[in-house]
Amino acid sequence: MSPALPHQHLITLAGMPGDAMQSLFNRADRLRTPGRPQVLAGRTVVNLFFEPSTRTRVSFELAAMRLGAQIVPFDVEHSSTQKGETLLDTLRNLEAMGCDQFIVRHRENGTPGFLAEHAAAGVSIINAGDGNHAHPTQGLLDAYTILRHKPDLANCCVAIIGDVLHSRVARSDIHALQALGVGELRIAGPEALLPGRDALPGCVVHHRIDEAVRDADVVIMLRLQKERMQHALIASDADYFHNWGLDDTRLQRAHPEAIVMHPGPINRGVEIADSVADGRQSRILEQVTNGVAIRMAVMATLAGTDC
Amino acid sequence: MSPALPHQHLITLAGMPGDAMQSLFNRADRLRTPGRPQVLAGRTVVNLFFEPSTRTRVSFELAAMRLGAQIVPFDVEHSSTQKGETLLDTLRNLEAMGCDQFIVRHRENGTPGFLAEHAAAGVSIINAGDGNHAHPTQGLLDAYTILRHKPDLANCCVAIIGDVLHSRVARSDIHALQALGVGELRIAGPEALLPGRDALPGCVVHHRIDEAVRDADVVIMLRLQKERMQHALIASDADYFHNWGLDDTRLQRAHPEAIVMHPGPINRGVEIADSVADGRQSRILEQVTNGVAIRMAVMATLAGTDC
Amino acid sequence: MSPALPHQHLITLAGMPGDAMQSLFNRADRLRTPGRPQVLAGRTVVNLFFEPSTRTRVSFELAAMRLGAQIVPFDVEHSSTQKGETLLDTLRNLEAMGCDQFIVRHRENGTPGFLAEHAAAGVSIINAGDGNHAHPTQGLLDAYTILRHKPDLANCCVAIIGDVLHSRVARSDIHALQALGVGELRIAGPEALLPGRDALPGCVVHHRIDEAVRDADVVIMLRLQKERMQHALIASDADYFHNWGLDDTRLQRAHPEAIVMHPGPINRGVEIADSVADGRQSRILEQVTNGVAIRMAVMATLAGTDC
Repeated sequence: MSPALPHQHLITLAGMPGDAMQSLFNRADRLRTPGRPQVLAGRTVVNLFFEPSTRTRVSFELAAMRLGAQIVPFDVEHSSTQKGETLLDTLRNLEAMGCDQFIVRHRENGTPGFLAEHAAAGVSIINAGDGNHAHPTQGLLDAYTILRHKPDLANCCVAIIGDVLHSRVARSDIHALQALGVGELRIAGPEALLPGRDALPGCVVHHRIDEAVRDADVVIMLRLQKERMQHALIASDADYFHNWGLDDTRLQRAHPEAIVMHPGPINRGVEIADSVADGRQSRILEQVTNGVAIRMAVMATLAGTDC
Repeated sequence: MSPALPHQHLITLAGMPGDAMQSLFNRADRLRTPGRPQVLAGRTVVNLFFEPSTRTRVSFELAAMRLGAQIVPFDVEHSSTQKGETLLDTLRNLEAMGCDQFIVRHRENGTPGFLAEHAAAGVSIINAGDGNHAHPTQGLLDAYTILRHKPDLANCCVAIIGDVLHSRVARSDIHALQALGVGELRIAGPEALLPGRDALPGCVVHHRIDEAVRDADVVIMLRLQKERMQHALIASDADYFHNWGLDDTRLQRAHPEAIVMHPGPINRGVEIADSVADGRQSRILEQVTNGVAIRMAVMATLAGTDC
Repeated sequence: MSPALPHQHLITLAGMPGDAMQSLFNRADRLRTPGRPQVLAGRTVVNLFFEPSTRTRVSFELAAMRLGAQIVPFDVEHSSTQKGETLLDTLRNLEAMGCDQFIVRHRENGTPGFLAEHAAAGVSIINAGDGNHAHPTQGLLDAYTILRHKPDLANCCVAIIGDVLHSRVARSDIHALQALGVGELRIAGPEALLPGRDALPGCVVHHRIDEAVRDADVVIMLRLQKERMQHALIASDADYFHNWGLDDTRLQRAHPEAIVMHPGPINRGVEIADSVADGRQSRILEQVTNGVAIRMAVMATLAGTDC
């Protein structure tokens, strides 16, 4: 077991100590340089994506490739789960074929954790997003990105804005930033899209974006899940942008050196203006770059390798 | 031409001598150990799957990867066969691009054999299952699995139970076990799902599962193809399990050291009880592991390599 | 910038000098031999195919693999473009993950060019076919194939026959052959499927296939896009074959050593007879083989490598 991760799997950031995260970040720093060691040569990584995703899937695939692993594309739609095979049988079968790591994304909370409970010794499950529960590699890459720009995290104010209720990204961001000792953590969004206060210990909740961004050092805008609108939680895109979108005027209320982040894919003109998304303070594409390095660090660590 | 396989292709086990099979098994023993030679480096393997399958497709892909081959995913649904290209033109084109081995699964009997008749010199076709005709790598891995537990095959009794009529697995198992000199081979299943006696030379046909498993050393349960029920050949899952499912009570009629096998994916509670599928005597996951080794042996042999 | 290609991208052959093409052909000659240098090791190639295609996609993938590149399969149907992400955001994100070359096929004219205008430094876009605009690697491989058989191009007569109006292949073929100094270039097809004469400078337009093939050294048959028939531009397959299909009788009007080409996939019995497609003078499968070598040359050149 590597010192960087206390478990065989990565399911959630809840309970992960800040120094374990810092150790992963140091490894990501080393692995992002060219001429990376092929520490996963001979290992097999399976992408088990039960929700459509390109960005995250490709990010994990590139991380695995660059460490020398072999990738098994597992097309869930064409799989034997069609024929009534249980999820656990699918895991057991791929384990029996010698697969080592499983990247799992699933619509339902708890599926990666369930697989982790039943995984064979030496096999790792990495949660690539389950329901609104957790997206731990996103939480890690967000914290890593913030620390590269705001190393004095204890004196840093981070605002997370948008549909917090349904966001696995927000949940993992909060766990990461609190474990690493963030100075102030603000949460803001429409009332219908905020969890109860009990679910947000240590966070300051705001009900207007202008208050939430004031003097903030980091502004993380969440993606608006369009399907929420079907449930009448949001009146319209235009209405949402009017009340909760980040444009230049609002960004000017933040610290002049504030950075803007977003987990992507962005809805331009809905939660964020083009001029902000593509502007001087945006770190959105840097998050994408950092994501590959963080995933390399996670995979290399879970594989028990030294690098 | 390697001594292990008398032909350039692997289409069926009918007519393959037992010593050719044994030679493949010896090669599988050598290839399954870590640090495998990359004997297919520089070769290109194409998966031509016209039926959905994950287990078999991934097994072949892992076998190819572990021998160092390059894999071309060929998504039949998105392919030019949409545009009216004939199957033979598809083969000719992939040959012209330098592809060396084609793994073919098709709903219709004879498709892999048809391609083999027309393949260029140096190109191999491997049948990964055609209709109810043959599934030769499954037959080989089943025989290989049996031999690892019951090396004295001449004194071994094997029972194959279920939908024999539609099963390419049963057909290939019978060919393999008879070529290797199995002591007794029993076939059992509902009358509507059994072929005529003429099609089963050398087999003992039973009409009740209790008779078929009595004192057997190996019990191979076949997958119930759910689509058979639509054709009214089976009353219901529950009815099938009641009459033909393998549960603990029935398994106790077999030899105390009998092993249980199934080609997968299993229908739990239909042809096999959970307690048997996951029990002490089950070798179902070992079959999966052995499948990769057998496919490596087949691919390495057809490529004419020494290893 | 390599001497072989004057730009960072390959979008069209319009304006490319003949000696740049010749330099690519020389490189293709070197790369097609076994034991190719892994000049793209560590590079990442993305297939961005917005139209179904197997032949071209696999050709590019094999070219990339054989140069040692890592391939990212990008399944457009499952991608975040579903979630409203713009094409440009998709490009930016994949760039941020360290992808180096993008193979782009799109239904609409100009999409690869648009991406090229916005691509980051060091990133290359390769047009794998856009609308009826251009298919530059097909144009190059066609010219390369012709030159291998008819090196004295200045004394060579090439006839391009069929649905020229909708054909990106025809357009790129014309650019390539004219840049390389072809002796005579004939264009023929049904009136409804021919562009205006202004669009065909330097070409001789014929209105009957018999005239177009007379004494020709090279006959390039274009694929009939079946969807044209829905628009009533063509009466029927049989009618098209009667008037415009290449059969043995018509081919006898060409030079006895004439070669026959087709970009594939062929519609047998529609634009070409079986006996011609599979006959002595056909170079259709050689085109396919040459396509991999040409694509290797293009990718290696755009990557700025020496080989």
